[in-house]
Amino acid sequence: MNQQEAIRSLEAIDREYVLLSHISGVLVWDQEQVPPAGAEERATQLGLLDRKMYELTASDTVGEILDALGASDVAEAGDPSLDERTGALVRHYWENWNRQRKLDADFVQQFSELTGRAHQIWAQARQDDDFSLYEPTLSEIIELVRQKAQRFGYTDDPYDPLLNVFEPGTTTAEVSQVFSAMQKDILEVLEYVREEHAAIDDSFLSQSFPQDKQAAFAHDILDAMGYDWNRGVSGIATHPYSISLGSDDIRITTRYTEPQVTSPLFSSIHEAGHALYEMGASNARTRGTSLANGASLAFHESQSRLWENMVGRSKAFWSRFYPRLQHLFPLQLDKVDTEQFYRAVNRVKPSCIRVDADEVTYGLHIILRFNLERQLLTGQLEVSDLPDAWNTAMEVLLGIRPESDRTGVLQDIHWSMGELGYFPTYALGNLYGAQILDTMQQDLPVDEVIGSGDFSPIRQWLTDHILQHGAIYRPKDLLIKVSGHALDARHFRDYLQRKYIGEN
Amino acid sequence: MNQQEAIRSLEAIDREYVLLSHISGVLVWDQEQVPPAGAEERATQLGLLDRKMYELTASDTVGEILDALGASDVAEAGDPSLDERTGALVRHYWENWNRQRKLDADFVQQFSELTGRAHQIWAQARQDDDFSLYEPTLSEIIELVRQKAQRFGYTDDPYDPLLNVFEPGTTTAEVSQVFSAMQKDILEVLEYVREEHAAIDDSFLSQSFPQDKQAAFAHDILDAMGYDWNRGVSGIATHPYSISLGSDDIRITTRYTEPQVTSPLFSSIHEAGHALYEMGASNARTRGTSLANGASLAFHESQSRLWENMVGRSKAFWSRFYPRLQHLFPLQLDKVDTEQFYRAVNRVKPSCIRVDADEVTYGLHIILRFNLERQLLTGQLEVSDLPDAWNTAMEVLLGIRPESDRTGVLQDIHWSMGELGYFPTYALGNLYGAQILDTMQQDLPVDEVIGSGDFSPIRQWLTDHILQHGAIYRPKDLLIKVSGHALDARHFRDYLQRKYIGEN
Repeated sequence: MNQQEAIRSLEAIDREYVLLSHISGVLVWDQEQVPPAGAEERATQLGLLDRKMYELTASDTVGEILDALGASDVAEAGDPSLDERTGALVRHYWENWNRQRKLDADFVQQFSELTGRAHQIWAQARQDDDFSLYEPTLSEIIELVRQKAQRFGYTDDPYDPLLNVFEPGTTTAEVSQVFSAMQKDILEVLEYVREEHAAIDDSFLSQSFPQDKQAAFAHDILDAMGYDWNRGVSGIATHPYSISLGSDDIRITTRYTEPQVTSPLFSSIHEAGHALYEMGASNARTRGTSLANGASLAFHESQSRLWENMVGRSKAFWSRFYPRLQHLFPLQLDKVDTEQFYRAVNRVKPSCIRVDADEVTYGLHIILRFNLERQLLTGQLEVSDLPDAWNTAMEVLLGIRPESDRTGVLQDIHWSMGELGYFPTYALGNLYGAQILDTMQQDLPVDEVIGSGDFSPIRQWLTDHILQHGAIYRPKDLLIKVSGHALDARHFRDYLQRKYIGEN
Repeated sequence: MNQQEAIRSLEAIDREYVLLSHISGVLVWDQEQVPPAGAEERATQLGLLDRKMYELTASDTVGEILDALGASDVAEAGDPSLDERTGALVRHYWENWNRQRKLDADFVQQFSELTGRAHQIWAQARQDDDFSLYEPTLSEIIELVRQKAQRFGYTDDPYDPLLNVFEPGTTTAEVSQVFSAMQKDILEVLEYVREEHAAIDDSFLSQSFPQDKQAAFAHDILDAMGYDWNRGVSGIATHPYSISLGSDDIRITTRYTEPQVTSPLFSSIHEAGHALYEMGASNARTRGTSLANGASLAFHESQSRLWENMVGRSKAFWSRFYPRLQHLFPLQLDKVDTEQFYRAVNRVKPSCIRVDADEVTYGLHIILRFNLERQLLTGQLEVSDLPDAWNTAMEVLLGIRPESDRTGVLQDIHWSMGELGYFPTYALGNLYGAQILDTMQQDLPVDEVIGSGDFSPIRQWLTDHILQHGAIYRPKDLLIKVSGHALDARHFRDYLQRKYIGEN
């Protein structure tokens, strides 16, 4: 097999892999429509697709192709005879192949079917507020995750290989270090604003706001962001998410579960931030390949959080858009002025639910999960002790204790999916986002752009500097390419201080 | 490979095949949600799944398994060492393997991608009422269908192998013969009722009927039929259909496109008839296999049409349910009595659109398509001459000429899917349905059961005699098993005469 043949073969395999992963996305999108009795077989279907994707990318054939391309050297040092895109594809497959070969198809299918079934069990346990319904399944999952980490292997920390699935090249030690700094910074801001923010009235956000008008407002904001309706759809789901069902079929969901006006909006902006990344990453160079993707989950999250918090919760944003919102909901908002509204949507208040957390305390929720995951992985903590450990950690970090497991350990879906190593990327996303924003501000008058109501200069800047590269660069390299230096928690600290202390 | 190993291997292959076909069903169900730019890649995804299913079932491995099982003899004469279910599975794979091996994976994928793309082209052409937009694509499709028929091979008629995909063991000559009889019978009834039915006022059916109340009424009727909401979902689509996305995920759609009250209802009943078949065919013996299916498309259609027409358009049905409908829509139906309503929903009137046709003239629409398909296949008719040929045939058979291609040759989706040989099964379904009804009436006071508002005795009879067998028997054998004799058009003739002449 010569180099050209090897590249063509790898591209054909990658094409099929991406098609299968998009097909899997259709099954996930449809998940909430499955009738009760159909749920178990849906998990089997997803398991089959996972197995097919595994067999395709971890095959002996891929091993031979990678050999023929000298993939180990390509991944290490690059290969001047390959263009940047092809080099990245080889590196990507090399890293994945080495990891996947340490599993096998049966393990992958077992993992997939178990976590597929776990979804409903978790949902039921959460609904019934009964951790004991979930405990046996979660124990099985954690056991498989432990096996997975052992199979992947590691030098320093068993958490490293799990983290690296989502954040290639980042170590647990590095995360620990930036999280320590972040924790200190957050607690400082929290201390500063505690009293003042406790007095902020945000009760007017929780009234009945007709859903159709909320959707119309969100639609306008998504238009301003440049969400491309020709390539996407917005739906309704219990848990908001964004997902690619095709190169030009990049969807988002939102939820309207409570009589509340900003939560669905911010969730739409957040998911549209993810979708814009996928839309921008799927371009002439990368379309239909594994590279038409974010550089990593933390990079992905940097986009969603930059749009949600740094744009959507900014003073410039509400100066521009609040009059329109007020016009839509005169009954509900007539007596609320822009400043009051701005303060309400930025109110800092320790609470139990991660997805409802303000942008200051959010990181503490992640630190809690990061610590528990590491303890679960080493066996230092068993699943049966998890609810207590959770509640104690909440008290230590946030000063509150959940009243029930529903608002405690049962709140998140991720562990039911077996996805340990995922949570840290959320807080890393905040850190990346602040670092990117600081860089963007050197080129653009960001507040002025936001205030204009047309965000296309921001989208264009992000496209030029981040989105268009898809997954071609390693996340660490891309961050340096964008901002000139490695991850530094001080950008996020400065952002919080400017917003919550400096301007007070 | 001994017999036991061969059976286990075949069952594993069949299991994967069924999972892939259900996955494909999810993609079809989601089709209407795909954003415009995503349509082309969705077709590619479906093409990949078709290719996978083809490679799985037409493989050398399947050939070896079938050899080891002496499948040729099993299919011909049965094998006493195999239970009925296993024998049927072997026969099914043997027939399919012999057919599929005459194609190849590239041909299958090409066919699938072409027809996948054709969907939007056809829809656009229909919307714009411009056959020329569709003609090149349809020509390509017909050319591939011709190749397919040649590859499959035939003894008497090139249409035979296409028909046999949907109706195993039935010949074109047999269909021609029963269709001739049916045509004569229909024209006789049509002549008899023409004047009288022209005078029937059905204008009150076409008013504005709030959709939520229509849906509630349909829900009640589906409950009475025994549609299992734990295993199914009812949605809205442009073209009503039923589809299995899993053994316990059997969905139906309806449409509310016009201000009309009975069309969505009858379409719901029709699709629920299909769904009941799938639900009944998926049982302890057949679950998750290719046998958890109707015996053939005509058998499938016999169920949907029996429920839609013979139950849903009966006097007993409306005697029972009309008061409830009238109560839901007092403004619209206050001045209409049960007899008027019954006559309106059974009004016989030649019209251009097949799916709107009454149960008398419906068969003529099928005969038209059957004739054109045979001519297209032999090249006696070219696609460019199709609109004219269509309109002329409409005049000859139904005495009317479509005003546009939209209400003529562009009305149906089937040819865009490359599915020649499919249409005849609709009319065969009417014939099967009448033959089944005559048999059922020997065991059950059908009208009385319908009038009681609880259709479970009918569903139970159908389950015992037809549904529970899934695809274990050949359709011809099953019809004899149920009714004691081979297909005979006189049952349908008698049904029409009883309903439209005898009772007049």
